[in-house]
Amino acid sequence: MSNIESFRLHTLVALEYLGTAAFAVSGVLGAIRKRMDIVGICVCGFLAAFGGGTLRDVLIDRRPFFWVEHQEALLGILLLCAACATFFKHHQLETSEKLLSIPDALGLGLFCTTGLHLSWTMGQPPAVAVMMGVVTGTFGGVLRDMACNEIPSLFRDHRPYAICALFGASVYVVLAWMAMPEWVALAACTFVTTGTRLVTLWLNLKLPAVDFD
Amino acid sequence: MSNIESFRLHTLVALEYLGTAAFAVSGVLGAIRKRMDIVGICVCGFLAAFGGGTLRDVLIDRRPFFWVEHQEALLGILLLCAACATFFKHHQLETSEKLLSIPDALGLGLFCTTGLHLSWTMGQPPAVAVMMGVVTGTFGGVLRDMACNEIPSLFRDHRPYAICALFGASVYVVLAWMAMPEWVALAACTFVTTGTRLVTLWLNLKLPAVDFD
Amino acid sequence: MSNIESFRLHTLVALEYLGTAAFAVSGVLGAIRKRMDIVGICVCGFLAAFGGGTLRDVLIDRRPFFWVEHQEALLGILLLCAACATFFKHHQLETSEKLLSIPDALGLGLFCTTGLHLSWTMGQPPAVAVMMGVVTGTFGGVLRDMACNEIPSLFRDHRPYAICALFGASVYVVLAWMAMPEWVALAACTFVTTGTRLVTLWLNLKLPAVDFD
Repeated sequence: MSNIESFRLHTLVALEYLGTAAFAVSGVLGAIRKRMDIVGICVCGFLAAFGGGTLRDVLIDRRPFFWVEHQEALLGILLLCAACATFFKHHQLETSEKLLSIPDALGLGLFCTTGLHLSWTMGQPPAVAVMMGVVTGTFGGVLRDMACNEIPSLFRDHRPYAICALFGASVYVVLAWMAMPEWVALAACTFVTTGTRLVTLWLNLKLPAVDFD
Repeated sequence: MSNIESFRLHTLVALEYLGTAAFAVSGVLGAIRKRMDIVGICVCGFLAAFGGGTLRDVLIDRRPFFWVEHQEALLGILLLCAACATFFKHHQLETSEKLLSIPDALGLGLFCTTGLHLSWTMGQPPAVAVMMGVVTGTFGGVLRDMACNEIPSLFRDHRPYAICALFGASVYVVLAWMAMPEWVALAACTFVTTGTRLVTLWLNLKLPAVDFD
Repeated sequence: MSNIESFRLHTLVALEYLGTAAFAVSGVLGAIRKRMDIVGICVCGFLAAFGGGTLRDVLIDRRPFFWVEHQEALLGILLLCAACATFFKHHQLETSEKLLSIPDALGLGLFCTTGLHLSWTMGQPPAVAVMMGVVTGTFGGVLRDMACNEIPSLFRDHRPYAICALFGASVYVVLAWMAMPEWVALAACTFVTTGTRLVTLWLNLKLPAVDFD
């Protein structure tokens, strides 16, 4: 492997860990809001970080899970959660959530891409592969919110989040159908997902509410 | 296959899709009550429609799921949910729930029968097969209610629902032990489950409350 | 098998059933608090009794589940739940929870040990095996609380429970690394987990709260 390829790979792994850590911290913040103890904080951090990928692996019947193959990642995330629980002050909650939104968008893009690619290369039908990508990117947060006994914010905050992942995944499917090289489809899926998420945050876009009364 | 058999089979498939659609709409109604966005509405519709069968397949370790094999069903249900979210008005909630109760009872009977039959033909013990039938018929609604952050209505509405499925499934087991032809047991399970559900709705029967004070 | 070994084995099985029954009754009490009907009471009892082991088996992809292999245990637990629902009076809730704490600590120790041992002998990495032990011992209660639409008490009651299991499991890992005989590690894990749980209850110990303001 050339130096440049090695550099690219290391950058990718570093970005994935950054995204995972951002997800974990979002779990810690949710748990702290509910005044959970250290056990709840670690479980919510774990669910937010690894829940989406683990749910996808259970659905497509794939073992071992990422955190079983890489116990150092499991230990690292749990230590991160414990450290957050120790050093965190309540008045930092809002600021932290704003700071998190950029690495969180990165995690969304990268997780969606890996989940979609995995399902696609297993030969699952396109609609299912797209769904697996979206689930991998978003359901860590859903499991976190369910453990916190809240309606998942994914379902009701009227912000494009799953929609961004759906959009990025659709770009992947179109590029794969056009027989573009694999890395183009992968990069496009990540860039489109993360990019649309950041743009919608920046423009403060909202999904239309269901028209009721 | 004769014309009559082909007609029977098509009728059965049509009834199953009707039941699945009724389940999906119940998910949409639950999500709308909680003022969820389009993502939440589709997830709740999906969970209500396919959640029971998917949970059963995870428990008995069976792949592919129905909605992986039939991506057109997955897309159809998601489109139905999106259409409901678009055209639905709030004052229609109560009426819709009443209208749903008949196809919902049909879905309960058909899902319970297929789940039970699948587990039974895998050679699982009778009590487990009966439980798998009841889970297939009822746990879509449980997952829907958990996603909506409510105590599942299955657990606390004091209406016979799981009990009807349990009753139908027991009839299947008795008929199978008497070595009746397979289609008799299947038909009896569906008719008894759906029938008792409709009768208990019509008579407005309630389960006895746990006697407390 | 000598008489003494046979006696030991029977004692162990009896203790495991006692622990499982204590878990089931904790599910029944949670369901009764929420005024659930007989279906909810049985589901919560089932989840509390078998949920932790079933979740572990789904995660490590092991079949059949304990309650599929032993349908008499499944039927026994469901009958126990139904009997509790019938004979229970509301004013007995608090006393029952206190009485439960001793067999519950026993269940925690035995379940943690079996889950850890299973994962360890499958060759999973130590951190994962420890986590599987803790999940087996504690996640029945988490699933019970989620079905009751509450924040799991494991996450927020600031009592050592998962911590006791973590401590017992760590003792197992140390003894296994020291190449001690298997039964020593197994017995130590159970005794340390159950013992520390009982001692922390007796001393009324609390985990430190996350320091906020």
